[in-house]
Amino acid sequence: MKVLSLFFFLATIIATCQGASHHPNPSFDCLSWRLAVETNNKRGWSVVPQACVSYVGHYMLGRQYRKDVQAVADLAYNFAKTVPLPRDLRPNVWILDVGDTVLSNLPYYAQPDVAFGGTPFNLTKFAIWEQKGISPAVPGILDLYKKLQSLRFKIVFISGRSESLREVTTKNLKNLGFTTWEKLILKQTSDAGTSSQIYKEKKRNELLAQPQRYRIVGNVGDQWSDLVGENVGLRTFKVPNPMYYIS
Amino acid sequence: MKVLSLFFFLATIIATCQGASHHPNPSFDCLSWRLAVETNNKRGWSVVPQACVSYVGHYMLGRQYRKDVQAVADLAYNFAKTVPLPRDLRPNVWILDVGDTVLSNLPYYAQPDVAFGGTPFNLTKFAIWEQKGISPAVPGILDLYKKLQSLRFKIVFISGRSESLREVTTKNLKNLGFTTWEKLILKQTSDAGTSSQIYKEKKRNELLAQPQRYRIVGNVGDQWSDLVGENVGLRTFKVPNPMYYIS
Repeated sequence: MKVLSLFFFLATIIATCQGASHHPNPSFDCLSWRLAVETNNKRGWSVVPQACVSYVGHYMLGRQYRKDVQAVADLAYNFAKTVPLPRDLRPNVWILDVGDTVLSNLPYYAQPDVAFGGTPFNLTKFAIWEQKGISPAVPGILDLYKKLQSLRFKIVFISGRSESLREVTTKNLKNLGFTTWEKLILKQTSDAGTSSQIYKEKKRNELLAQPQRYRIVGNVGDQWSDLVGENVGLRTFKVPNPMYYIS
Repeated sequence: MKVLSLFFFLATIIATCQGASHHPNPSFDCLSWRLAVETNNKRGWSVVPQACVSYVGHYMLGRQYRKDVQAVADLAYNFAKTVPLPRDLRPNVWILDVGDTVLSNLPYYAQPDVAFGGTPFNLTKFAIWEQKGISPAVPGILDLYKKLQSLRFKIVFISGRSESLREVTTKNLKNLGFTTWEKLILKQTSDAGTSSQIYKEKKRNELLAQPQRYRIVGNVGDQWSDLVGENVGLRTFKVPNPMYYIS
């Protein structure tokens, strides 16, 4: 009886949740779309489907996004605590992406004409936002950053931002409490024209080739292009981001 | 005004949805847990958390699981339609895992004492279920299988099931309409003791080494261990499965 009432209770919620992603085409569902994005099943998309703009907006501004990112941070820390580190002189590194992994672009994406990624990417407008250097921290990640450093891991930021944004990015990070790091790797003019995935793989390989022979332990990013390819680390952690796709 | 009312409507649903995953520990959330599982952030877990058994059960029996799997099938077919195939003699292959990718174990997992993965895995009991060969098809996947064949792709099943289950698995597949395939690769006694990930990688590498020089185009599985490592194919597709983890 208890189970039966629980069934109807939950069945109702399930039905309701699906309501949140209602779409004229019944075979299309925003919850399924977001899951497909987060699992890397859905690739190469340029805008959030019109039918899912409200869904994505309310997810990003609601409690669930914060809970989901906090869960990523908790899992990353739980792994970091237990990873066996060989007693050698190689620095043990966690790689963190910057945009929407550490520095949130949500205030930009929440603007009506950006519509949480529902309108085509506007490089000029986005560049103006990045220049401001006023990103808040992605929830839970500052705490993870501090805990990783307390475990004596070195932090290496690998960002798709251009070298010209080094000062503004550094200021933004320090203002938020990201006070120190091993490296902040930004895109050089020589890196232009390569995909983010190839660029980040190249930078990871360069880390391993350096005299210190960095050991990549963990890798946190909001895009699968941060987390796939060579030398991604012992474990990768995907931060949710249903607003845009970078290859 | 319209937007405002929409906000409260959706905010309510978001709150309600979170209700579905309520847990005494506020920092723990079943939606976040499932997302962590599906993104391969959460690894090496042995049972579904007690607090999420009802959530997982209602997800698997409810509409959302079917919608999510259908979305995977649609994405896989949309990719298959567009993948450019070189004009050579190499057979173009889609690899499909079997358990909970093609043949559903949901009737087994829905049993009260299995509790959708909420109780420890019972190999003896599960072996008896597999011997029956009465699995239904995973929703949407039979249709994908037929469409892939209509596009002239060869189907190769790579399963963690043992060779001793070849006859029962073949019958089960044919009864459901999976009438023909290039290979049904099952675990040999010589494969014992290796992880699923290493075993499946080995079998993929063997496909490429064969005289036909199979080309792996797509790869569909419910476990990340089906989809990572060497020669995974041009694209991988993760079928949802919050009931168990195989490394």
